[in-house]
Amino acid sequence: MRPEKIDHLGIAVTSVEKALPFYQSTLGLQVVHEEVISDQQVRAVFLQVGGSTIELLEPTSADSPIAKFIEKRGEGIHHVAYAVADIRAKLREAKEAGIRLIDEEPRPGGHGKLIAFLHPKDTGGVLTEYCQRVHGE
Amino acid sequence: MRPEKIDHLGIAVTSVEKALPFYQSTLGLQVVHEEVISDQQVRAVFLQVGGSTIELLEPTSADSPIAKFIEKRGEGIHHVAYAVADIRAKLREAKEAGIRLIDEEPRPGGHGKLIAFLHPKDTGGVLTEYCQRVHGE
Repeated sequence: MRPEKIDHLGIAVTSVEKALPFYQSTLGLQVVHEEVISDQQVRAVFLQVGGSTIELLEPTSADSPIAKFIEKRGEGIHHVAYAVADIRAKLREAKEAGIRLIDEEPRPGGHGKLIAFLHPKDTGGVLTEYCQRVHGE
Repeated sequence: MRPEKIDHLGIAVTSVEKALPFYQSTLGLQVVHEEVISDQQVRAVFLQVGGSTIELLEPTSADSPIAKFIEKRGEGIHHVAYAVADIRAKLREAKEAGIRLIDEEPRPGGHGKLIAFLHPKDTGGVLTEYCQRVHGE
C-alpha cells in the first residue's frame, strides 16, 4: 500500500508570528487552517503548498515535545507525514518490518486526522508520521 | 508567486542501500530516478510520493556537505525544496526580504533542474531550496 502523498511537513518554531512572514510573504503560501492540539501541547498553523501543507508547530508549554526538540536541536524540520488510506494496516506492516512504533494505536492529530509516529531510530533519523483522513474530509 | 508544490524532501543517509528497505518495502514508495550529483558530491536516489519525491542523499566523499551534515547532526531530513516557476524572481524576492542566499545564481541540481538554496539562519533553521524545471520536463 503506497502513501498517497506527503500530507504535511512539520516545522518546529519558537513563534508562529515570527515564522509566518517568510512562509506567507516570501515563499508565498496561504494559511488554510489553525488549531491548538492539546494532546501535543502545540499551536499548529497549516499553509497549503500543492496537495500538501507546511505545519508550523509552536509549543504551548515548556513540556511540549516541540519545546524539547527546539531546546535540543534548534528550530527546523521536525517530521514528515505521509497520507495513508489505512493507518492501522501501515502500522502493522511497519511493526512486522521491525520498526518501533511511538504510537501503537492511531490518535487524533491536527485537522481531525488519525496520526501515528514511527520511531526515528528505525527510520534513519527521520521522525515519520502516518496520517489518515476520517469522515471523508 | 506561489510555489506549485513540495518538489522534494532531501534526506541525508550514510548509505542508500541501508535506507531503501524502509522507503521501498515499509513505506511502499518506488524509485523513479537515480544519479550522482558531482557538484554536491552526493549520490541521489529519488522515490515518488504523490507529486513530490523523497531524495535520499548519500555522500560520495568526506568533503561532501551531506557528509558534514551527518557528522554534525546525524542522519535525517536535510532540506525541503519547493517547485517554483521562476527561480530568479523568487531569489530576488527572498533577497529583498533580507534573506541571505546560499546561491545568488541558480545552479544545476538533480533531475536537470535549476536549484538554489536560501540560508537556514534566515528561514527558521530550515534549509530551503527553490527548484525550477527546465526543458519542459
